[in-house]
Amino acid sequence: MTKIAPIALTIGEPGGIGPELSLKVWLRRHDDGLAPFCVLAPLGILENACREHGKNVPLKVISDIAETASVFDHALPVLAIADAESPVVTGIASASTANVVIESITKAVDLARNGAASAVVTNPIQKSALYAAGFKHPGHTEFLAELAGPGTIPVMMLANSKLRVVPLTIHIALSDVMNSLTPELIIEQCEITAAALQRDFGIANPRLAVAGLNPHAGEDGTMGTEEQTIMAPAIATLRAKGLDVIGPMPADTMFHEEARTNYDVALCPYHDQALIPVKTLDFHGGVNVTLGLPFIRTSPDHGTALNIAGQGIARPDSLIAALKMAAEMAEKRLLTGA
Amino acid sequence: MTKIAPIALTIGEPGGIGPELSLKVWLRRHDDGLAPFCVLAPLGILENACREHGKNVPLKVISDIAETASVFDHALPVLAIADAESPVVTGIASASTANVVIESITKAVDLARNGAASAVVTNPIQKSALYAAGFKHPGHTEFLAELAGPGTIPVMMLANSKLRVVPLTIHIALSDVMNSLTPELIIEQCEITAAALQRDFGIANPRLAVAGLNPHAGEDGTMGTEEQTIMAPAIATLRAKGLDVIGPMPADTMFHEEARTNYDVALCPYHDQALIPVKTLDFHGGVNVTLGLPFIRTSPDHGTALNIAGQGIARPDSLIAALKMAAEMAEKRLLTGA
Repeated sequence: MTKIAPIALTIGEPGGIGPELSLKVWLRRHDDGLAPFCVLAPLGILENACREHGKNVPLKVISDIAETASVFDHALPVLAIADAESPVVTGIASASTANVVIESITKAVDLARNGAASAVVTNPIQKSALYAAGFKHPGHTEFLAELAGPGTIPVMMLANSKLRVVPLTIHIALSDVMNSLTPELIIEQCEITAAALQRDFGIANPRLAVAGLNPHAGEDGTMGTEEQTIMAPAIATLRAKGLDVIGPMPADTMFHEEARTNYDVALCPYHDQALIPVKTLDFHGGVNVTLGLPFIRTSPDHGTALNIAGQGIARPDSLIAALKMAAEMAEKRLLTGA
Repeated sequence: MTKIAPIALTIGEPGGIGPELSLKVWLRRHDDGLAPFCVLAPLGILENACREHGKNVPLKVISDIAETASVFDHALPVLAIADAESPVVTGIASASTANVVIESITKAVDLARNGAASAVVTNPIQKSALYAAGFKHPGHTEFLAELAGPGTIPVMMLANSKLRVVPLTIHIALSDVMNSLTPELIIEQCEITAAALQRDFGIANPRLAVAGLNPHAGEDGTMGTEEQTIMAPAIATLRAKGLDVIGPMPADTMFHEEARTNYDVALCPYHDQALIPVKTLDFHGGVNVTLGLPFIRTSPDHGTALNIAGQGIARPDSLIAALKMAAEMAEKRLLTGA
């Protein structure tokens, strides 16, 4: 195995399941063959999580992420950051702990950008609490893109062992999808996706499949015309540039086992079209990957789960999958010298 | 096993895979434990299919569907109808064979309505060929509803061993979905669905789950308001009537294995939301069931497949599943005396 730099794991919302999951994934480091990672958090938050969950996880504060590899086998490396403005209350997201959330992310990105970390893996954040503290970004991904520098266009990909999908539009009303779907958007997202599959997933000639917006991809314009006016021209442009893109395809028949062998990633005009198949096929092992950043970023495909925080029942499957995928991507990037 | 009347199987488009599948399912009668059925078709079309596919299927013309049971074990019972106006050409759908398609359906419905047949199972039809012959109905289901008599409201349900779904709107452009989704539509389709699950599926108190239109079911109105203005009031009305209905639910998280245990049927505002999960989970074994008719009707969940007709490669899985489901529904109806 190639020697990748350690992975930087952010703590996410301290009142959510992030602290608990951070302990749980370290306990699974051997069973799941996890590459070394450190958690960016105040030590107290993790000590508290150990107490709450009865997890006797040895914590080791490190001052340099480079120490991670030598510590990781016998203790969870903690790259400590400043304490929260007020104590964390498990199950409650508060503006007074937003400084921790933001510093954890900012520091992880710094480490990844200068090469000290091979990837950033993020625990989920609670946007409402951050907004109350003055956070100005629409979400986690947009914040990361801004930290990455101007001109960065992030593309969200959901992936598990069975399927990779990119929703071309995400958190907007269904009635806004038709107006948001432009040839430019399709071209941009396909190009970023293809480049990322080459660089970070080791796929020399990525095969992209684009789902039609309408039922049966419009069936020759009898059920909607966006396939003809917007999607087909964009796909033609991409093919003229040499990309392997098929579509627009009827979405309902492109996600079963045989159909999935025809492409490496499916790009879908809207949220549910992409997320229904990926979550139906593997609900717990899904990973959210942000393509288009100058560094590798993955995250579990779930939220802060404030309602179950502190109960010890949060499943670490998705965070484990996110850590594994980040390591695999870092390996590929190292091998290809990208 | 209760003794149900024979099932009437229509031939569908004679140029498509219907004749081939009709032979194939009879050959699987023992392996799959199929209840007796007869095919409504001119004998020549089935003789031709035997020649083309090298299937030495004994065909036995019967003059009364009641003969089906005694014939079925050793020969495929054929309730003969008039020949096509011109010879069938495999792989081509023609207006000159539309008389066969229509008579097969009409006769099957007659038999089911007078109780001589326990159910109608339909092979796929090619609408374009029927339109050319003057057929006036939007589709197969609407034709059946008209044959069933005035006031019949058909509801399409797709079902396989893992999931049942009802799309509340079907073959319309995505941009038309928002305006088509009314409280009246939701209430009507939920009521018809619940009644059918009781009568034909033996579910005493059917649990219905309604998917939200927008991502995350609108997330409190931040991504669309139809959940609040249209869907929640309809669901409240249904609950006030005593139906077990939950929703509107985020569609992306309602189709994985654990989530599916919470309901007996999912009703979705639009085509892809319903058909993506059901076809992703089991592409070949899906059955299209028409609820709300005064008789039982199922069909395979695929088209005429003109492009592969005559090659012998069409898979009978879906038609077998349709025949089995029709028999099970007829059993239930007989048991409950409905």
